[in-house]
Amino acid sequence: MNQVIHSLYWKDDTLYILDQRYLPLLEKTRPLTQYEEVIDAIKTLAVRGAPAIGVAAGYAVVLAAREEIKNTQSFAVLQQRLLKITNIIVKARPTAVNLSWAIHRMNSVIYSSSMEAIYTDLLHEAQAIEKEDQETCLSIAKNGASIFGNKKDLTFITHCNTGALATTGVGTAYGIFHYLAEHHQVYHVYADETRPLLQGSRLTGYELMKDRIPYSIICDNMAADIMKQHHIDAVIVGADRIASNGDTANKVGSYGLAILAQFHKVPFYVAAPFSTFDFSISSGQEIPIEERNPDEVRKIQNIYISSPQSPVCNPAFDVIPHELIHGIITERGILTKPFNESIKLYERRLSDNV
Amino acid sequence: MNQVIHSLYWKDDTLYILDQRYLPLLEKTRPLTQYEEVIDAIKTLAVRGAPAIGVAAGYAVVLAAREEIKNTQSFAVLQQRLLKITNIIVKARPTAVNLSWAIHRMNSVIYSSSMEAIYTDLLHEAQAIEKEDQETCLSIAKNGASIFGNKKDLTFITHCNTGALATTGVGTAYGIFHYLAEHHQVYHVYADETRPLLQGSRLTGYELMKDRIPYSIICDNMAADIMKQHHIDAVIVGADRIASNGDTANKVGSYGLAILAQFHKVPFYVAAPFSTFDFSISSGQEIPIEERNPDEVRKIQNIYISSPQSPVCNPAFDVIPHELIHGIITERGILTKPFNESIKLYERRLSDNV
Repeated sequence: MNQVIHSLYWKDDTLYILDQRYLPLLEKTRPLTQYEEVIDAIKTLAVRGAPAIGVAAGYAVVLAAREEIKNTQSFAVLQQRLLKITNIIVKARPTAVNLSWAIHRMNSVIYSSSMEAIYTDLLHEAQAIEKEDQETCLSIAKNGASIFGNKKDLTFITHCNTGALATTGVGTAYGIFHYLAEHHQVYHVYADETRPLLQGSRLTGYELMKDRIPYSIICDNMAADIMKQHHIDAVIVGADRIASNGDTANKVGSYGLAILAQFHKVPFYVAAPFSTFDFSISSGQEIPIEERNPDEVRKIQNIYISSPQSPVCNPAFDVIPHELIHGIITERGILTKPFNESIKLYERRLSDNV
Repeated sequence: MNQVIHSLYWKDDTLYILDQRYLPLLEKTRPLTQYEEVIDAIKTLAVRGAPAIGVAAGYAVVLAAREEIKNTQSFAVLQQRLLKITNIIVKARPTAVNLSWAIHRMNSVIYSSSMEAIYTDLLHEAQAIEKEDQETCLSIAKNGASIFGNKKDLTFITHCNTGALATTGVGTAYGIFHYLAEHHQVYHVYADETRPLLQGSRLTGYELMKDRIPYSIICDNMAADIMKQHHIDAVIVGADRIASNGDTANKVGSYGLAILAQFHKVPFYVAAPFSTFDFSISSGQEIPIEERNPDEVRKIQNIYISSPQSPVCNPAFDVIPHELIHGIITERGILTKPFNESIKLYERRLSDNV
């Protein structure tokens, strides 16, 4: 089982992305040379997944710098222009905190660099974010796998896509399945198709097939029945933003899935890099939820499945209250309840390390 | 607000059906003159909804009789042939009990009629089933509405389609919304889109729009968040088969929705004709669940949304355990817990009436 999927990579001053809108039927890699193209790719979900968005945003700043350096004499002006651009990039999507976290790192470089060094400095920082993402994925995978010890025949349910396509490594929640499957411990993974944009059936199904992990795609509304009919060892999902108390924003449907897991006494885990925590907010109520285009619900693959005039709801995310979360699997370890305290502990460890 | 939708009707010895596979984008009425066409319409969900299937099955027997009479001299042979055909019709779909209930009624006519009278007798019985369905719908609507008294600004969540398209009247669960809306008591109805076949977005959305009831279509995985964000007065769904203890088989997703309702302290009701009860089974475990073609999950509107090789689950129904059901709304009244006892009470009332 080799990791052959690359959501994005940098080569010859160009950001190449595997355009996820065409998967699984078409594997289309697109070169992006302008930061505006990266913003567009993030907005249209050609690139998606909180960690991958963070990495893409880093490279978007590099692309912006290359253009702006050509037309700017003064470093102060260049800094101003780039900060203006990063302020646009950071708004591409509102919920995933990794985007603003990556931009924050790129901004620090803009502040501290020089005319001569800025392009190389920004490129190194973007590459560092990518490399750290890959290492983080692997650590999350190992930490998550440790929960199950040497247990065989594990069965999981997951939601949305959290694999190689959502990151630049093995993934977050998916990385755990990947790691356990390499150790022959996985019996079956049930992947929610994840309406409206079907990241489960299109992307997670694609990854599970490539990785030869036994799986079934289920409609989101089948998860309850699957939990009733089969022994499920855990539900593991990713995260787009985690508040200080452990409340977690993730792809819409995650909240309901957590309730169903509790009802069936199935442990529910969140797997995410530590950078997904937003220490500036105390609870999930403060997380902004992106409301996306109603046509995403009205149409599938550009064909209307309901009346074009139908009123619809289309929040991209919902919030899982911390009470429903068994543990939060990060690269630094597994946070347990009370999250308020364990988060502070791991935050301190972070400060001590740095 | 007029009832202008007819799922099916009988005219000039022909069964006309509104082919629901093309809704809401196309209103296509098709004449069926052979019983095999009716079976095909039921199997492909051109006609669907437990009560409507029952009525269609009745007329299928009439169509069969018209053909068989032509080629048969002996009444005993005609009876045998027709019973063979009803035995095929009854197997068109396994879960909805109304189908076997309607066929049981038609079989009684086959047993008791004569060569001269059988066509008229069967037609009268099919028409009686249709008329009773319409009256039943209205009684269910009134009984269901009575739960909410004069309360205004009611907000509901529903699943699948249970309206005029699923019956030959105003519907079961939907009929309650329809009745309350006529009395200006409905603020909003959230309709689950109901994957895989999207009966919610395609059919319930179509009916709500025609009836000018304020509504939103939601993806099935959004129901939990809707319950968290909004005051919901009740979740009301239909039923395909109800066991003696109140366990209810209904469109897949109903079970999960019932768990979510309980978690949010929202009353969860089932609305169905009394004929939906299957007194021959003691619990939901005995209800056969139809597993449908995997392509229904892999494709939408004939376009693959996942790899054509993807393994998928596609149970058409799941079972809501009676513990999660607040009440079962029938044309005879509202059954409450313990269902075992209230069902027996209403069953006795039925026997007394007959």
